[in-house]
Amino acid sequence: MNDTAVIIMAAGKGKRMKSNLPKVLHNLAGKPILNYVLDTVDQLEAKRKLLIVGYKSDKIRELVGDKIEYVEQKEQLGTAHAVLQTKKLLSDFKGDVLILSGDVPFLTVKTIKKLLKHHQTNNFCCTLASTILKNPKGYGRIIRDKKGEIKGIIEEVDLSADRKTITEINSGIYCFNKDKLFRALEKITPDNKQGEYYLTDTVEILLKEGLTVGNIIVKNYSEILGINSRLDLADTSRKVYQKTLQDLMLQGVTIIDPSSTFIEQGVKIGQDTIIYPFTIIEKDTKIEESCLVGPYSHLIDANIGKGVRVWASIIESSTVKEGANIGPYAHLRPETVVEKGAKIGNFVELKKTVMGEGSKASHLTYLGDATIGKKVNIGAGTITCNYDGEKKHKTIIKNGVFIGSNNSLVAPVKLGKDSYTGAGSTITRDVPAGNLAIARSRQTNISGWRKKKKEDKS
Amino acid sequence: MNDTAVIIMAAGKGKRMKSNLPKVLHNLAGKPILNYVLDTVDQLEAKRKLLIVGYKSDKIRELVGDKIEYVEQKEQLGTAHAVLQTKKLLSDFKGDVLILSGDVPFLTVKTIKKLLKHHQTNNFCCTLASTILKNPKGYGRIIRDKKGEIKGIIEEVDLSADRKTITEINSGIYCFNKDKLFRALEKITPDNKQGEYYLTDTVEILLKEGLTVGNIIVKNYSEILGINSRLDLADTSRKVYQKTLQDLMLQGVTIIDPSSTFIEQGVKIGQDTIIYPFTIIEKDTKIEESCLVGPYSHLIDANIGKGVRVWASIIESSTVKEGANIGPYAHLRPETVVEKGAKIGNFVELKKTVMGEGSKASHLTYLGDATIGKKVNIGAGTITCNYDGEKKHKTIIKNGVFIGSNNSLVAPVKLGKDSYTGAGSTITRDVPAGNLAIARSRQTNISGWRKKKKEDKS
Amino acid sequence: MNDTAVIIMAAGKGKRMKSNLPKVLHNLAGKPILNYVLDTVDQLEAKRKLLIVGYKSDKIRELVGDKIEYVEQKEQLGTAHAVLQTKKLLSDFKGDVLILSGDVPFLTVKTIKKLLKHHQTNNFCCTLASTILKNPKGYGRIIRDKKGEIKGIIEEVDLSADRKTITEINSGIYCFNKDKLFRALEKITPDNKQGEYYLTDTVEILLKEGLTVGNIIVKNYSEILGINSRLDLADTSRKVYQKTLQDLMLQGVTIIDPSSTFIEQGVKIGQDTIIYPFTIIEKDTKIEESCLVGPYSHLIDANIGKGVRVWASIIESSTVKEGANIGPYAHLRPETVVEKGAKIGNFVELKKTVMGEGSKASHLTYLGDATIGKKVNIGAGTITCNYDGEKKHKTIIKNGVFIGSNNSLVAPVKLGKDSYTGAGSTITRDVPAGNLAIARSRQTNISGWRKKKKEDKS
Repeated sequence: MNDTAVIIMAAGKGKRMKSNLPKVLHNLAGKPILNYVLDTVDQLEAKRKLLIVGYKSDKIRELVGDKIEYVEQKEQLGTAHAVLQTKKLLSDFKGDVLILSGDVPFLTVKTIKKLLKHHQTNNFCCTLASTILKNPKGYGRIIRDKKGEIKGIIEEVDLSADRKTITEINSGIYCFNKDKLFRALEKITPDNKQGEYYLTDTVEILLKEGLTVGNIIVKNYSEILGINSRLDLADTSRKVYQKTLQDLMLQGVTIIDPSSTFIEQGVKIGQDTIIYPFTIIEKDTKIEESCLVGPYSHLIDANIGKGVRVWASIIESSTVKEGANIGPYAHLRPETVVEKGAKIGNFVELKKTVMGEGSKASHLTYLGDATIGKKVNIGAGTITCNYDGEKKHKTIIKNGVFIGSNNSLVAPVKLGKDSYTGAGSTITRDVPAGNLAIARSRQTNISGWRKKKKEDKS
Repeated sequence: MNDTAVIIMAAGKGKRMKSNLPKVLHNLAGKPILNYVLDTVDQLEAKRKLLIVGYKSDKIRELVGDKIEYVEQKEQLGTAHAVLQTKKLLSDFKGDVLILSGDVPFLTVKTIKKLLKHHQTNNFCCTLASTILKNPKGYGRIIRDKKGEIKGIIEEVDLSADRKTITEINSGIYCFNKDKLFRALEKITPDNKQGEYYLTDTVEILLKEGLTVGNIIVKNYSEILGINSRLDLADTSRKVYQKTLQDLMLQGVTIIDPSSTFIEQGVKIGQDTIIYPFTIIEKDTKIEESCLVGPYSHLIDANIGKGVRVWASIIESSTVKEGANIGPYAHLRPETVVEKGAKIGNFVELKKTVMGEGSKASHLTYLGDATIGKKVNIGAGTITCNYDGEKKHKTIIKNGVFIGSNNSLVAPVKLGKDSYTGAGSTITRDVPAGNLAIARSRQTNISGWRKKKKEDKS
Repeated sequence: MNDTAVIIMAAGKGKRMKSNLPKVLHNLAGKPILNYVLDTVDQLEAKRKLLIVGYKSDKIRELVGDKIEYVEQKEQLGTAHAVLQTKKLLSDFKGDVLILSGDVPFLTVKTIKKLLKHHQTNNFCCTLASTILKNPKGYGRIIRDKKGEIKGIIEEVDLSADRKTITEINSGIYCFNKDKLFRALEKITPDNKQGEYYLTDTVEILLKEGLTVGNIIVKNYSEILGINSRLDLADTSRKVYQKTLQDLMLQGVTIIDPSSTFIEQGVKIGQDTIIYPFTIIEKDTKIEESCLVGPYSHLIDANIGKGVRVWASIIESSTVKEGANIGPYAHLRPETVVEKGAKIGNFVELKKTVMGEGSKASHLTYLGDATIGKKVNIGAGTITCNYDGEKKHKTIIKNGVFIGSNNSLVAPVKLGKDSYTGAGSTITRDVPAGNLAIARSRQTNISGWRKKKKEDKS
């Protein structure tokens, strides 16, 4: 097999996106469109990988990093002009050049390998991938002679009326013999309606040299469809999400309603876990078996143990262990660990906090920078005062502690094993093990007050 | 051009709606069905505008106000009877009468103008709008003779079996020469299966007088489909919502999942703003560019600046300025302003409150009738006690104040610049600038308490 | 009519479900698949009802209880083997045996009665229900001779290539003369590709005896489709939910968006109630007329009076009476009653609590085990300290009480009529009627504190 250099076209703005972001960076079901193409390219044995960037190239470089060679196309004068910018970088390269589009996310490795094989086996100067579309409007068409041999590619705008019925379209995906490609590129002129240098013109130029152009027809046309607008983005996002949900269902996960559930590719979910509607699960979330998740739940990078219940809650970059119970209306912020069998109830927020095994914070509580032992009961309305206006401080609560309702725990502070605090206390000093800490005023009942108040008014 | 009087038919109950509300008042994607028709009529240059009301006409009058002439149809004896009620009001009027249905929301101004032009150019006594339906069941049919000339309209219930295959249906939208219309109306008899006075009978009456009836065929049949049941209402609502979302996407707004997003017509959203699933945006909401809104967010009449993040929150009639961060689980009630870069966190409610630039209320807080300066830190669990059982009072918090956790700020009260309050304090008096205010009891640790308690039990 | 014994086949694991739960126990739009079949059987006048169980039969027995006769199929050797296990139990029974599948939930009573009637009227030895499928792949086919007489049933795996085009499939639903059934069952051998004892082989055996096998063709094929995977489960769940929503709309309930609304069969909703998107209504919930429910609301076994507003809230096994207002972000836990016109606001949780007529708890409150009178105002941040670490205690609040903000009410405690508490109080003793109870420290303002603090730092 010849060596292959992959060129990914990603210089365009994508006008129809109406965006300040380059089209290929738009998010498609959880990751940028371009990442789909890069992930595919990673599975090829390519000798060289080049990314042609132009519009807001800094943003693309920031995302992709240094795992690829960049080629800047400063002015956007057409696809042929774009590819020509790689000439210098590829001057030492010998072999075939595979040209992919950064906005065509679903082209499979299998199809690419088929294209390369067909190209190399037949020793073509150029092999292109075409497909048949019922409604080919908007695409460049493959022109063939009476024998069915490819004669060229004509862009939609330059198409004569009688050729508009041609249903075989150009995918924009090609394999070229490198030397022949660049020889042809230099002969291209921009004499077409858009005044651009078209890569597609290489085909006619090579044919005129008496060379043979091959092609494969991609049966599943969705592989070669590009994303051109936010409508396309929404449509394809839905398809990616539905495919992921289907795979999960086949693996033994119940998705009550796939059309109102959003789970990103790469999320792992164990057998017999049930996902209720209005649930979004993102990033590297892992959920073990027999959990109940949702409705109204948003999990980002969460790690959920066996048999956990998550109801109407948000979990970010946190771990929830076996049998724990979260929500409804709980919010676990990053670096939180909820140990086995613990319970986080409604209107409770945890941040950088360890909630010990079997401990409970059932209502209206904020626990930040806290380390909480086993079988602790955190009363409703408890707040760790972890911030003094300048720094964050830690709260340590040992096993078996009972915190009364409406407590303020002014960090740094430690509550010893089995200690107990009175309702409404502001705890500013450490509480030794087994102690009762209380910090509140005595109640005074003033009789006749309401009556007097009414009289005062009248 | 002749003068035009528009008559909108809105007297019916709409039996199939099974409702105490007149059918035309049912909400269709954010506004009553009737408003669609009224908005269309507002774009016509009509000399007179009449609304025929009957069932619960008070509710219609309440909605529409005095921008139209009302005609009461006290008994509902049929469409001809309804139109006849306008006779007195139109006694001085000369010109054409355009008859529209209050339950046909999508008829376009373009189609109406085409109807009027066709009518007036040809000097017809009556011109009707028809359309072709694959499944015409339930509609009155246009009867034509062998030459294709209109011979009349027959309602579904009165249709002979051989005519049930006719696919050209009557839309219920007509233009009449006023004098000929009323002459014909008075000749109508209720000798049909429903025993009603049918407006459609005018056609045959006028034809018998030797006059010519014209028609236009509306190509997009959805323009003339009426809403007859709550199933129709749900179907058409979805279409209106999807159309609005499509328009927004084409303008550069990302809608992650159009099928779980509801945005009303008239909402304005800037480029590169992303709307996450399970989001509802209503009324005159305006969102600037590069915001992230949703998931689980409900915005009503909100005004959202550039680069704002709204996550799992509810915003009613409030303003959120550039770069501010709302949620998750925040609720901004009416007349709230969140200034630039401010942060409203989880389980926080604001009402008639100004939150100053860069200020934060991150957890479990209620701020009502408060004016808060810049760079203020509101501790978790802070509550403005704005209501004393009789009146609401104001809380004023100046720049740079730090409110400790679990504070009660008993309004009216002012906290001076850079003042500071201790955790767990109930602030009942003003705090001068730079002061520390503290109002809590000393903590007492009672040793051996837990042990004693256990012993007491045993 | 002959006596009928119904046998429901429910012994299989349902491999494609990839589950630890027997397939028939998977939840389909709110109840186990098997319950659909049991509910249908309950409407037949069957002399005997038998359920063949095998895989995790304990779980099925637990669900179904003792209203049916169980037959254990210990090894799963095929459908004929399964039915043969009933022989002993049915030894005294005379009449017909109706065989149903536990995983075919939508077969109607009407179809079953038609099958039974056809069977008994014609005195067939066996009558089966077949249907025509465009895509019959995966199903056993009905084999007929040139005259159209049934000759047998062949399973998909055993089908010769030329028979794969047969579109008439076996539903797995049969009626047999009991004696002939068991005589045939004992002749069956497992000489087929799966090595199983097929119930379908009875047909050929009976025909060889010269008996006649009848059939009915079920027109609505969805009646006889089984659920074989979680994909099937999601598809059929959606259909059940959509059917329920359609029925409700036809009864006069507005469902803004049926595709994002989930209401279980059996929920009752009154006329002119509007259900907003992202709402889930479960179990025996009853909602009266003219309510607004949703968005983002989850009701389980709730009882909602006329004109109630529920917004972004969760209600479990609670009653909310006429004109009350719930949410957003409220959580009513079981055994709660919200009386007429009461208001439960944001971040408020109620548990086993009665909230009196016209009373309000508007913000950040937890009320547990409380009985609250009329026109009570519960200040923001109020918490009933109902748990002392060992027991739950009650809080009683009489008519007209005003609880200040951030109060802790340490139960057991009573607040008398028209009593009043100061903000920030911890109420540990009963408050007599009309008294003001106050339990807080005096505020101290320490001047120059902030300046000193800054100086200390520098």
